[in-house]
Formats: sequence, C-alpha cells, structure tokens
Amino acid sequence: MPSPVMDISSLRQRANEEALRRIVEAEPVLVDIAPAGEVVPGMTEETILTSGAPMAWEGYTGGQRRAVLYGAVHEGLAATVEDAARRLDGGEIRVRSTQQHSCVGSVAGIYTSSMPVFVVRDERAGTTAYCNFYEGKSRYRLNYGSYDQEVADSLSWIQETQAPILRACLQDCGPIPLRDLMARALRLGDELHSRNTAATMLFERELMPWLFGLATTETTRSQVREVLDFFSANDYTFLRLGMAAAKAIADSAHGVEHSSLVTGQVLNSREYAIRVSGLGDTWFRGEHPQLDGKFFDGFTAADAEWIGGESCFTELVGLGAMAQACAPSLMQYQGGSYQAMVEHTEAMYAITVGEHPHFKIPALDFRGTPVGVDIFPVLACGVTPLIDGGLAGKDGGQIGAGVLRPHPAAFAAAAAAYTSTYGSDQAALSSNGARS
Amino acid sequence: MPSPVMDISSLRQRANEEALRRIVEAEPVLVDIAPAGEVVPGMTEETILTSGAPMAWEGYTGGQRRAVLYGAVHEGLAATVEDAARRLDGGEIRVRSTQQHSCVGSVAGIYTSSMPVFVVRDERAGTTAYCNFYEGKSRYRLNYGSYDQEVADSLSWIQETQAPILRACLQDCGPIPLRDLMARALRLGDELHSRNTAATMLFERELMPWLFGLATTETTRSQVREVLDFFSANDYTFLRLGMAAAKAIADSAHGVEHSSLVTGQVLNSREYAIRVSGLGDTWFRGEHPQLDGKFFDGFTAADAEWIGGESCFTELVGLGAMAQACAPSLMQYQGGSYQAMVEHTEAMYAITVGEHPHFKIPALDFRGTPVGVDIFPVLACGVTPLIDGGLAGKDGGQIGAGVLRPHPAAFAAAAAAYTSTYGSDQAALSSNGARS
Repeated sequence: MPSPVMDISSLRQRANEEALRRIVEAEPVLVDIAPAGEVVPGMTEETILTSGAPMAWEGYTGGQRRAVLYGAVHEGLAATVEDAARRLDGGEIRVRSTQQHSCVGSVAGIYTSSMPVFVVRDERAGTTAYCNFYEGKSRYRLNYGSYDQEVADSLSWIQETQAPILRACLQDCGPIPLRDLMARALRLGDELHSRNTAATMLFERELMPWLFGLATTETTRSQVREVLDFFSANDYTFLRLGMAAAKAIADSAHGVEHSSLVTGQVLNSREYAIRVSGLGDTWFRGEHPQLDGKFFDGFTAADAEWIGGESCFTELVGLGAMAQACAPSLMQYQGGSYQAMVEHTEAMYAITVGEHPHFKIPALDFRGTPVGVDIFPVLACGVTPLIDGGLAGKDGGQIGAGVLRPHPAAFAAAAAAYTSTYGSDQAALSSNGARS
Repeated sequence: MPSPVMDISSLRQRANEEALRRIVEAEPVLVDIAPAGEVVPGMTEETILTSGAPMAWEGYTGGQRRAVLYGAVHEGLAATVEDAARRLDGGEIRVRSTQQHSCVGSVAGIYTSSMPVFVVRDERAGTTAYCNFYEGKSRYRLNYGSYDQEVADSLSWIQETQAPILRACLQDCGPIPLRDLMARALRLGDELHSRNTAATMLFERELMPWLFGLATTETTRSQVREVLDFFSANDYTFLRLGMAAAKAIADSAHGVEHSSLVTGQVLNSREYAIRVSGLGDTWFRGEHPQLDGKFFDGFTAADAEWIGGESCFTELVGLGAMAQACAPSLMQYQGGSYQAMVEHTEAMYAITVGEHPHFKIPALDFRGTPVGVDIFPVLACGVTPLIDGGLAGKDGGQIGAGVLRPHPAAFAAAAAAYTSTYGSDQAALSSNGARS
C-alpha cells in the first residue's frame, strides 16, 4: 500500500516519534571492559581521541591542547610534551574526535590506545559506545588538562588493577543491564551527570557477589579491596557508565530521516556543536555556552577555560539537567536553590518531545524526565538544553561545577540545514514549544 | 553565685534548650550485637517484651496478643499458643514493655531472650538502647503478628547466620558511628523511618571490608554472601539501627527538670502514649492515631488493626515524618503527593523547638529537620507530631503503609501533669507555636 503524501511537518513529527521511541526504549547493557586499542573501532596505537566536533590538530588550544600532549606522553608515544607537539605537528601521532570512534569524552576526554574503556551496547538497537574510566576525585586529572606523577599513577592503577578486576568480574557475571539501575539512582537523588552517588553504590552492589568470587588469593583480595576503596571514595565512578549508555542510546536515535531531534552535543576548546538525527554526520557549530557556576575556594568565573566535554550526552537521553529536580543535594556541588533546580527541569519540557517512561522524577510526583530535544522549539522558545557540568581552570584541574546554557547559534545552523535538506516547516518555525 | 529566680516559662524554655541540645548533639554509635538475654537490662529467659506503654498481660488484644503468644512458642517457652496463653495467665512467662528495658519495638515489637539485638550507645550522654533485627520483606513477620514455618525460619537465620556474621564484623572493625551515615542517607532520599534504602546501602558499604575479611573459609564465604543477599533484597534493614539510635538519643534527653519536650511515643493494642522529659516515667495515654494509608492490593482501612509500634521514636529525633521532604520516593510506598510531603514536614516546625544541625533537608535548601516536639505548641496549634509507619492487618501481616496523626488526648494529659507538677505556664498554653 503506497504511503499517503505527507507534508514536512507531519513527516518531521513522525520521524521525531521514531527517534524518541529509540531513545526511551533503549536497553543499555555493560557488555565488556577492555583497552581502547582492542575494542574501539578505528583506534590505533598512534591515535589520541579528544572531546568535541572533529577538528584539525592546529585548532586545539590551551588546556585541551595540553591534555592531548600529556596523553601522548602518558601513552609513551613521546618523551616530552615538546616531542609530542612535534610528532603531532608531523602527523606521526594523530588526533581524532571521540565522536569519530563511538566514544564519549569527559571534559577534555583524552583516550589513548592502552586506556581501558567500558563497552555499553543498546540491546534494542545494537549500537555500541565506549567510555574510559573516572580518574578519581583529585582536582588534578588528565581529563581536566593536568598531568604529573600522581595523575600518571592514578591512570596506571586504573589500567593495571581496577579495569582487570572489573573485567574479570564481568566475565563471571555476564552483561549488566544499566537502565533500571539508572532509573533507581534517580529515585535515590542522582541526576546521573553531576551526581552519581547512588548509581555508584548500586553498581558496586551489583558487582559485589562476583568481587567476592574473585577474592580467592591474597593478591586478588587486596586488589578487590582497592577497587572497593576507590568506589567508596569516588561517588562519580558511575558517570562513565552513564555516559557510555547515553552515547549508545543517542547513536541509536541518529539517522532517522526527517527527524529534528538532537542526537549529539559536544564541546571542544573552540566551540559547542550539535548533531541532528535526520541531518547525517554534520556537526552544527556555535559559540561556547554561558555558565552559571559554583567555584571551589579561590577561583572565579574568570579562571574557567573551555577544554572540551561530551558528558552532556546524558542530557540528550533525559538525564543530567533534564533530571535536576531528582537531585536536590547537587546544589552543594553546583550552587543554586532547589526551586531553581525544579524550574530548570520544568523549562526543559518546552523543548523536548517526550517524557521518559523509565526515568522518573519523584519530587514531580514521578513525572517522566523531559527527553528528546527538538531544534525547532529550542529556536522558537529561545530556550537551549541546559547542561550540568564540571568546570576546568586555565591552569589545569577542576575549579568548580555549574549549569551551562548553550548559545542558540548551533541550533540556528542546524535549522537552516534542515530547511535546505527537507524544505521549510513553517509550523515548526512558529511553534511555541515541542508539544504545542 | 545564686541563680536568679526564674518564672515557669523561662525555666521551661531553658530546660527545653537543654533537652534539645542533648538530642541534636547526640552521637549514636553501634557498639555491639548480642542476644537480648545477654545484654538487655532485666531481660530473662522467661520474659517477652512487646511495644507500647506498660500494660498488664490481660490488656493485650488481637494481633499484639497473638504476637506475644507466638513469641513464647518461638522461644520454646511453650509448646502451643494455648500452652503459652496458660503460662502467661499464670505468670510463668512474663510480658513487659520494651520501654521498661531500654528497647524499642517495631510494630508489635516482640523480643525474646535468644533474639539478637543491635546495641547503640549515645557517646555524648552514655545512654544505651537496643533494637532487634528486621525480619525481611515478607508481608508475614512476627512483628506484624504472623507466625508460621517461614517466619520461624527467617528468625532462625537471623539468629544463626546474620547476627553472628555482623557481630564478628563489628568485633573486627570496632564501633560504627551512625549519625553522619544517617545524615548522608537523608541526602540520598531516605527519611529513616519508612524509607531506609540509602542507609542500608551505606551501612553495608561500611561493613564491606570487614565482611571481606571474614570470608576466609567456604562456610564463612557462603554466610557472608547470604548476608549481602539479605541486604540487597531488604531496603529496610537499617531501620532497626536507626530506631535504636533514636531511642538512645531520646533517652538521653529524658529527665530534664521543667522540660516539656516529648522523649517517647509508643503504641500498643489499646492506646497511644507519650513520655515527657521533665515528667518522669509516666506514660500519658490517649486514643489511637488517625491514619491516612496506602493499602496493598485487596486491603482497605477497615482491615487495619493496632498491634503496637515504637519506630515513631525516629520522629522524636528529627527523622521519619519530620524529614518526609527528604524522601519523595516514599510516596510509592505510602501514597500522597510530594507537595503534601513537603507540607507535612513544614507543619512540624510549628510544634518543635529546633532545627537539626546535622539532619538536613536538601529540597528545603538544606534547612535542618524540625526536632524537639514540645507538648504545649502541640496543644496550642492543634497539630500533633506526624508519624510515618507500616500498617498491620487484622489477620496478621503488613497490609500497607501511611501517615499517622496522633490524637491530642495524650498531650492534654501530659500538659495537665506538667501544670500540676511545675505550676501553670500561661505563656506556653497561649503560645501559637514552639518558637513564637
């Protein structure tokens, strides 16, 4: 039976429903832990991945450039940062965007070949995404553009102890479904971007019987204890699993013809960029977000620097700022009032096409989180998708946390491309909200 | 220097400040786990403790009477319930109130000599209180007036496996401070009466390295696993520790001359009763609370029965209904809306004399929970201290959960006793709130 002829607006609506369905019905599962070089598609020993829309090496500045250089040194690709710069300039070491390799980067998001990654598959769509490990709660971390002996030691411990123990665990227990664990964490006060305290405990508890099973020798007992100590000390541990899940889910919703939903949002040192489901692999670029931050003692907004970030994939699947109302305790970390947090979440319903059937907000009487950001209501309302996030300092290290408000420029560029690809959707452009 | 002569109102206010100070500065610590017969003062092999103000055996009716009989059978003091009834009638087995033995009972609150108890000491005041163990999530439990092979098996497993493992753990790790753990659980969505999900995880995590240390043989490994499985399956596990802490804290605030703060509230099958700091060991008795419940499928309010309960000690130290605004997810269990929960908590500030410096409510921008219930503003405002609680059914077992609103009669009786003991405090009687 031939399809009836549909106008752009109907086609877009139907496509957005399909993209939304893929997002909310996704079933992310942790299936493996392995070195990036073994499992990330296209990864080579000489490749360094970093956050943000693809960019030539020359484009990276400040802390993100330094982080790439440090990554090269850490991986043993260069003896010094000067040596690393020469090899990068000469193309002997190549820099690629995480987004070109199904990865998702926290802040600068440095991946090298030997770094272990979580492998998360969306069992519904079959998409797979990767995220490397949380380095620990020190203000100084490679992903915040810092590198010294302590940072190196943390990375080595993750590679030599944490990842092998968790991998062995996973081999014993089999794939770990993440969706229900994440939904439960929202009921325990996480929003799963800047707060992962409950999810980290739930994940630890999930592994516990298998960790016990591994602790059969003095060596493995001591290693398992080190891993448990790391979990206890680092409430952020789960973030990387949530990010990999968000990336796998967003990728599953990418490529729906006519869909105007955002399926990627990323930052690098130069710009903020989005990807749209129905518009292929183009990244629509615009200026950096405004930020409303709470700074650690001694720092101000003037000390902040953009060095990349892709943890804002979580916001695209109904988490993070979309779920701020779940996480009142977050205000200790990123400031504000609970009323403002509720208003942040509530404002997001105007620019999203659905309410998540699994991710619920207890304090809004279990209303689903706003999910499925549509570029057209963003432009019509002048409201961009808020992002929870950590803030990097000009001299390296984390200096605070806060709420980012993306500039609408990237959305305007995407809307122009949509119109030139599919024709003008007058209804969308004059719409007063995603569901008006 | 001689004290200046003070009027009743000033003496009462100063006394309440002292009682409040003891409550909020308390430092409850889990110091031991042992059979009740070994550690509970005055406990004997022939004693059965049950919840509520002291009452003669003949006074107990319905499910609470049955629970006492079942306790006697379970302890091996009688062959059948009929045999138990004869021995209780004859005084061969004696029934005492938990309150006469520094214990605190969940629902019917049955304690027998061999049952293990948590021993919690308030390190500031030196008071010690005891609470027995959570039986598990089955609707049928001895403390809900049920007894069959499954109930007996659960109790035996607690006595033979859970308690010895936890006791051994505690002997290795030393006393476990509870206050900060409880404060943290409030930030993770517990209110520590009807929701203990986060506290149970935090407590489990606290024990984890020591549980690992115990798991050195096949037998202990398997026992430790059973304990971990119990913790994972039973989000309520921590309640009994919180109850023992609340009882130790409330006892520390008892006995301050002139104080009109409530230091005990209890239910038995006949009545609701309170104890007041400055009025000795008298229990002021009144009719049962009103209840606003959410019932499990197939049950209604008509099926509910009062069979005792003392977990409402938690409300007297700033937890439970006093902290409902911490726990939006609780509405899945006991009904209502989050707005109503916030209003419940907010209404309690009018009848309490302080805000807890450690127990904070994230969603109220970290305002301290209302703490220190004063009988006079209760009467002046006509607002009694709300209680979160589980609901027992006429045929035994739990049939739901909800919010209890005590009748003011017990408070009126206490106020009359206060006036006859210390003279009339006109300011208090006309007061329009604890801090007006």
